[in-house]
Amino acid sequence: MAYAVDITSPDDPRVDDFRDLSTADRRPDRPGGKGLVIGEGTVVVERMLGTPFEPYALLGVSRRYDQLCGQLRDLEVPFYRASADTMATIVGFHLNRGVLAVAGRPAPRSPRDLLAAARTIAVLEGVNDHENLGSIFRNAAALGVDAVILSGRCADPLYRRSVRVSMGHVLRVPFAVAASWPDLLGELQRGGFSTVALTPAQPSLPLAHAVTSEKVAFVLGAEGPGLSEETLESTDVRAHIPMTTGVDSLNVATAAAVAFYERARLSEDASR
Amino acid sequence: MAYAVDITSPDDPRVDDFRDLSTADRRPDRPGGKGLVIGEGTVVVERMLGTPFEPYALLGVSRRYDQLCGQLRDLEVPFYRASADTMATIVGFHLNRGVLAVAGRPAPRSPRDLLAAARTIAVLEGVNDHENLGSIFRNAAALGVDAVILSGRCADPLYRRSVRVSMGHVLRVPFAVAASWPDLLGELQRGGFSTVALTPAQPSLPLAHAVTSEKVAFVLGAEGPGLSEETLESTDVRAHIPMTTGVDSLNVATAAAVAFYERARLSEDASR
Repeated sequence: MAYAVDITSPDDPRVDDFRDLSTADRRPDRPGGKGLVIGEGTVVVERMLGTPFEPYALLGVSRRYDQLCGQLRDLEVPFYRASADTMATIVGFHLNRGVLAVAGRPAPRSPRDLLAAARTIAVLEGVNDHENLGSIFRNAAALGVDAVILSGRCADPLYRRSVRVSMGHVLRVPFAVAASWPDLLGELQRGGFSTVALTPAQPSLPLAHAVTSEKVAFVLGAEGPGLSEETLESTDVRAHIPMTTGVDSLNVATAAAVAFYERARLSEDASR
Repeated sequence: MAYAVDITSPDDPRVDDFRDLSTADRRPDRPGGKGLVIGEGTVVVERMLGTPFEPYALLGVSRRYDQLCGQLRDLEVPFYRASADTMATIVGFHLNRGVLAVAGRPAPRSPRDLLAAARTIAVLEGVNDHENLGSIFRNAAALGVDAVILSGRCADPLYRRSVRVSMGHVLRVPFAVAASWPDLLGELQRGGFSTVALTPAQPSLPLAHAVTSEKVAFVLGAEGPGLSEETLESTDVRAHIPMTTGVDSLNVATAAAVAFYERARLSEDASR
């Protein structure tokens, strides 16, 4: 069981991995980054258990320890217990959620590993907003997407804010970073995937007409720039979400949710 | 045309309406609030023109003045021009978007005014997160929702952060606050609307089976608590978005987008 270790001084070196979270380690995935994965709040902490992101330490207030210690019974790791004020000083801001967990980063997976068993995947080009990235994973988990593949120019999905916004689903939905882009799209096509670029631009098919293949890879770009021309040219199909004229596009994570929903709906209908 | 007025001192009283935006006037809609509507960034400022939220003053850097003055030619109002530093001191934080506009708040509308011409509306119970509220309006605008009605316990959709996240669409999509709740739901039903409660709970219909009536009112609750029992009991239909087992619900604005999309898709099919 996680064992409580009381922390009374914010300078205690045992909690260094939780220090200054808003400024330290902003690109944990890059050389020089500490590579740590930080989960915030009971929901996310619970979701880390039994995954490759099993916490090796926690920091939280007494109430959260009492609340979580049942679920943490199989985990022989320290739960650093501190007052809310001490915790705020360590972390660098006041943390409403009252508990943090830290895990290491498992070896990255390759796109190929993820494709064999997948029917629906999301492929992200240059999605560099942590919250959008987190939301896409949350939506992927809810709406039956099997894996996510990121271009090298995406933000780090394991950064703290992505983990939080995803409700911990970045730790659950398998993902990989594509070594080369847009070669990945050719690899997907050879693997039997229909690559569907989501774009508000015409000409393109309405979403519902574009997602009926046996295997579908949705290709999504960052809000604002969208997909690059090179990527658009390398996909099989372009699809749009029918929208009111004159209104700019949906947020990328919202558009992703609509696409994932449509895919799940049609798959459900087909399996009847 | 908007005329430039150079502001060199952050203490200049002419820019008082833009002062300390992150702390002042957090409930502008409540007694004691200033009632101001603040738009941030060129997209939102442009979207204010020709609406009841026409700006009576702007504050921005020189580059934004140059960029906007063509669109502002019919507007005889001051554009307070300041350096980025002076502007940051006035506003209380550094504003990436470089321009703000302020408008008054028009007389509130009543739900009844909005219903006559509407086929699809969104009804929000206790949605108290400004960003979710803004996103719901953005999604409503993009996906053909005619109006939004809010219970009294919702946040103020005209608060700055909602305006920003909505991309200005809170200023375009008609909305009203329901004087009494859940009486509103009865009024909708008498007006010919099928009231559809969106809920992850069972028993409920899959979304696609619940939105085919001539007039539909989607009823949405806040993330976390969801809809109250009283509201659930007062609606005609309960509908869920089919989701992967064991995954918690989507964000409320995302769920709204999926519902609005499904409604638009079925209406489109029906009109063929």
